[in-house]
Amino acid sequence: CYSCFTGSICSEIIHDCVINFDHGDPKMFEKYWSLHQNTVSAVLRGNERMSYFSDKEAVCWFLEPSLAMEIKLMHKMIGNAVTEGHHIVVGTGSSQLISAALYALSSLAHHRPVDVVSASPFYSSYPPMTNFLESQLHHWAGDASSYKTSGQNAYIELVTSPGNPDGMIHSAVVDGTGPVIYDLAYYWPHYTPITEAADYDIMLFTVSKTTGHAGTRIGWALVRDIEVAKKMTKYIELSTIGVSKDSQFRTAQILKGIRISYSDKAENSREYDSNSQRRLFHFGYEQMDLRWRQLRHAIGNSQCFSVVDFPSGYCQFFEKNTRAHPAFAWLYCEMDEDCHAVFKANGILTRSGLHFGSSRKYIRISMLDHDNVFQLFIDRVHQMASSCHKK
Amino acid sequence: CYSCFTGSICSEIIHDCVINFDHGDPKMFEKYWSLHQNTVSAVLRGNERMSYFSDKEAVCWFLEPSLAMEIKLMHKMIGNAVTEGHHIVVGTGSSQLISAALYALSSLAHHRPVDVVSASPFYSSYPPMTNFLESQLHHWAGDASSYKTSGQNAYIELVTSPGNPDGMIHSAVVDGTGPVIYDLAYYWPHYTPITEAADYDIMLFTVSKTTGHAGTRIGWALVRDIEVAKKMTKYIELSTIGVSKDSQFRTAQILKGIRISYSDKAENSREYDSNSQRRLFHFGYEQMDLRWRQLRHAIGNSQCFSVVDFPSGYCQFFEKNTRAHPAFAWLYCEMDEDCHAVFKANGILTRSGLHFGSSRKYIRISMLDHDNVFQLFIDRVHQMASSCHKK
Repeated sequence: CYSCFTGSICSEIIHDCVINFDHGDPKMFEKYWSLHQNTVSAVLRGNERMSYFSDKEAVCWFLEPSLAMEIKLMHKMIGNAVTEGHHIVVGTGSSQLISAALYALSSLAHHRPVDVVSASPFYSSYPPMTNFLESQLHHWAGDASSYKTSGQNAYIELVTSPGNPDGMIHSAVVDGTGPVIYDLAYYWPHYTPITEAADYDIMLFTVSKTTGHAGTRIGWALVRDIEVAKKMTKYIELSTIGVSKDSQFRTAQILKGIRISYSDKAENSREYDSNSQRRLFHFGYEQMDLRWRQLRHAIGNSQCFSVVDFPSGYCQFFEKNTRAHPAFAWLYCEMDEDCHAVFKANGILTRSGLHFGSSRKYIRISMLDHDNVFQLFIDRVHQMASSCHKK
Repeated sequence: CYSCFTGSICSEIIHDCVINFDHGDPKMFEKYWSLHQNTVSAVLRGNERMSYFSDKEAVCWFLEPSLAMEIKLMHKMIGNAVTEGHHIVVGTGSSQLISAALYALSSLAHHRPVDVVSASPFYSSYPPMTNFLESQLHHWAGDASSYKTSGQNAYIELVTSPGNPDGMIHSAVVDGTGPVIYDLAYYWPHYTPITEAADYDIMLFTVSKTTGHAGTRIGWALVRDIEVAKKMTKYIELSTIGVSKDSQFRTAQILKGIRISYSDKAENSREYDSNSQRRLFHFGYEQMDLRWRQLRHAIGNSQCFSVVDFPSGYCQFFEKNTRAHPAFAWLYCEMDEDCHAVFKANGILTRSGLHFGSSRKYIRISMLDHDNVFQLFIDRVHQMASSCHKK
């Protein structure tokens, strides 16, 4: 069973259990895929995809051509990124691609170690990923908002948009003299309105947050400069001699299945119908919309907690105005100094704002767990908010 | 078609083509797996293995339990390594595990940067893997044979046994005061007699060289010290947030298929029969035996080239004396200074001894390519050896 549940059909609640919403395991999508498990099933026969190589002549020699094609078609269908004029580099999740991009840009910089910065609140993994090997190529230099460039130092700015943890649309904040890595893991229509096709020099995506297949460990980078793409490929060659062909093949099958579900002429309208279970982004949108409404309702007009209101925007994919429903809630404790401790005392494990270069009054909460666990979470938040009124 | 061949069934030779035996793509095994493609086929349904996690309580939380079980059973069946008293850490190929082990041991060392050494001829990837990120944790310190320990410095010794490139059985050569990583990628019965079960502190294996599934990118480490295993797991978490579940599942299916092929009671004898095509290690042994005989015959009593004779040993798996048939030939040019150039001039791309901390008079040649390409290689070597006599 998943966490907090037991019994033969995993329906019995373990009442004193701790809900772990510290990490963003995208279990919400399992429900969708259990309905479509065979339409995207991948069969790997014993003699298939045995070689290290996919296309020896390509810039990224371990990228499976079928995956490259599906990535291009998916971005075209969604309209969230321009693939023309970009090279695709595949990675073992977008984590590996962040490290690869830092390596590539640092190697090409005029001065090392390069300062790596990101505007607070930034993704909590950026500092350890940058520093853990004590590389002399780059080091973490903190909040981009307070970073001052100099002629001597080189810098790289990391921008996560929509933000992890805050769900907001972001742009680079430093003066623009250095390269920017855009981590667009959450720039998909179930999380945020797709207002334009992103066309940055380096853009990162991951199947984990797009379709929920986190265990597959596939991410991809769209890279304008061929020298950067080559260096990123070199990083992955030296780290892992490429990326699982099995997972690349499976990802291609999954993306293809989603694409076909939307190409069905009879169902071509992107307007909602009662059959949204048929199409992933509609399913995801409805789930996230419902969950965010439940969370806002549970918080109510509590004087203890708050989450921001997101602006709505015209989504070119859904062809209507939609509102953002981020994969994480970035919650603020109005009264208490240590928000993480308050939630932990109520059986909810979250990630403290401290990890994101922010204050302990903030926490990040995953919105992507199983329905049942999420409902239990909503019940507990509702109780916390209610008992807060009584104070 | 594979390299050097064209036509509808890939049977026409491209005569002026360059045979690339610089890398060790294990294509020889495709023939075996095309006969057994369905017995080990892995089906990945849309809703399976979606989570980041495999076993949250385990030391290596992203290791699939089914793979862990098959790894243990395979080592038990072959008798090449002791798994009892060791933790299993899975990696994206053994490359990632080498880096993970260097990180783990360096982090725990009394002095940094740690000197990383390996006896020449060493695996050509060790120096760049150690140095490419300019880590302050460890740096490449060259040939272990000439390394002098000191009270101040800490060191890590890498031992590849059988050796890549030289195919010989090796042990640590430094004084034993520092940790040793044993890379046992080639310690399987198709390459070398299994004379005992290895029982070192850190042992690395990879499916690439065991079954030929290089594109699957799965390796595993057997690690005695739980603190080292935890640190290695942390490295993989920070690098790639785990290892493809799809590839782990596929690898488990493949190892299971091999195991079952040997458990068949009617075929239980490990003696050779005419049906060696049924069982992977017998197939691999026969292929390697044939290829090495062909290579030795092609070289003949040439005064230009030589390869070493390997001692025979009692293989506990085959229950008979066998001789080593390494995955690479480590060839010496008697006459010419630049062996790589000589072979390149004859349309054969190899890896120069310089990359292995050795002399230009040596080259490393992959013995694992497709049959047809290997035969073309043998023809060319035969011609080179013959024309050499005429000098």
